[in-house]
Amino acid sequence: MEIIRTISWMKETVRQARAENHVIGFIPTMGALHEGHISLIRRAKADCSRVYASIFLNPAQFGPNEDLSKYPRTFEKDVEQLSAAGVDVLFAPDASEIYPPGFHTYITVEGLSEKLEGKSRPGHFRGVATVVLKLFEIVQPHFAYFGRKDAQQVRILQQMAHDLNLNVEIVVCPIVREPDGLALSSRNTYLSSDERHAATALHRALQEAQRAISTGTLDAFQLQTIVSGLLSNEPLARADYVEIVDAETFEPVARIGARPAYVLLAVCVGKTRLIDNLLIEPASAENSLICSL
Amino acid sequence: MEIIRTISWMKETVRQARAENHVIGFIPTMGALHEGHISLIRRAKADCSRVYASIFLNPAQFGPNEDLSKYPRTFEKDVEQLSAAGVDVLFAPDASEIYPPGFHTYITVEGLSEKLEGKSRPGHFRGVATVVLKLFEIVQPHFAYFGRKDAQQVRILQQMAHDLNLNVEIVVCPIVREPDGLALSSRNTYLSSDERHAATALHRALQEAQRAISTGTLDAFQLQTIVSGLLSNEPLARADYVEIVDAETFEPVARIGARPAYVLLAVCVGKTRLIDNLLIEPASAENSLICSL
Repeated sequence: MEIIRTISWMKETVRQARAENHVIGFIPTMGALHEGHISLIRRAKADCSRVYASIFLNPAQFGPNEDLSKYPRTFEKDVEQLSAAGVDVLFAPDASEIYPPGFHTYITVEGLSEKLEGKSRPGHFRGVATVVLKLFEIVQPHFAYFGRKDAQQVRILQQMAHDLNLNVEIVVCPIVREPDGLALSSRNTYLSSDERHAATALHRALQEAQRAISTGTLDAFQLQTIVSGLLSNEPLARADYVEIVDAETFEPVARIGARPAYVLLAVCVGKTRLIDNLLIEPASAENSLICSL
Repeated sequence: MEIIRTISWMKETVRQARAENHVIGFIPTMGALHEGHISLIRRAKADCSRVYASIFLNPAQFGPNEDLSKYPRTFEKDVEQLSAAGVDVLFAPDASEIYPPGFHTYITVEGLSEKLEGKSRPGHFRGVATVVLKLFEIVQPHFAYFGRKDAQQVRILQQMAHDLNLNVEIVVCPIVREPDGLALSSRNTYLSSDERHAATALHRALQEAQRAISTGTLDAFQLQTIVSGLLSNEPLARADYVEIVDAETFEPVARIGARPAYVLLAVCVGKTRLIDNLLIEPASAENSLICSL
């Protein structure tokens, strides 16, 4: 696996690959890799003849009081994992390569970016959209792979790609979970042993919602009450939001209906903020729904 | 010359041209073409093996009280001129093709976009940057050509291309003028006969600045006084701004020095707002300056 540090060399590498008609798959990451990331790479390996990953801990998507400085950095272990997974090129630029002095251009996906995660983390999605557009221009992939755990992020990037006519297809991949249901996240390493146990409340709450939906509870307020109730039983957990939203607009819905929807959770476990979600899609069979955890 | 109305067909055309290793030059326009536009096409013809132009009257760059509805529309004449100039493909989408319902993504080049033209026309440069990025994604040119008359616009697009790592080179071309010095602009057609005569004041004022600079007047306030004085002699003209700015930052300078600078004018002649500029660059010979009108 080649490791590239500069934009110019990455672009030259891509130019050669494109001239050889390779299909390029791309997995942008912030490092601290886990099996969720590796599942994206496996999917890209199946789809593409070249798989490029990036590790860039993007300062623009962290607020001033967020965890940029303590975000886990495990570069050597990440390199081993990416190499073992068959990644062809790792793009790992310094912050000054991506944001040189005088950098002033930002992408904003209005509406979708201000609510939920965007409300809790002002400027977060502007930072995400901007760095992802830059990485797309540098790596010029045919396909880019993201995990559904960050459902709002993925939706915003799809909207950006659509609105700006980007020449890349965003591929959304399933959430990967620990055996006890906790969604994989680089931030799980922040959890103490007690908190790690308490963190399973997110998955248990979503399972409860899934059970309720399967027995016909489609009213959003009822579902919220069920989920919030389960979360409030966990003393180390404090819900930031529990929302039932349309999967396209991310606007709250009063009732699960004919359009795909999400049950979205953001929960602080100790000082660690975790998110998770349940996707609900109408099935082809009449009146039935498919819930994906 | 092929005329293409849809994004999907334009992208397919570009894909084929790129597969055949063509070098693509692109001239985005809002129609109402004049010899300034045609000079850009001639330059692209000299540089590139395929020349694509677009005509798109971009609503996102007009304010609510601006001249979108009365902006000159001369599509058939434009097509004749582009065809005669050797353009291979004209991309001429409808507004709904570029801004479909639910469009929400915008590019902002902060700092540069808020001053001068951006101060007089809030949101203007956000609209310009957004549509130009979209057109770049659709047309995927190697080179894109813009006239120096819109100096701040060109600078903002260069900053955007740099900041977002776009795979296109912005080529800045000289201002084309009428025999009496008036810079060509689609908005010149708004001028009555008297106003058309008065409009030469912009060029005359910039010539006066050029003469002053050549005899050693480098103080910005003195230059502004000279230019404003000449403009105020013209009863039909009212200066919106006269500024001496650094050519990179567009921040006011106190004195013409070692870095390139602009004398920038925005002048209302009757109800028509016109802009023009003088570029001042240090020459290689010691202490000498090159002024370009």
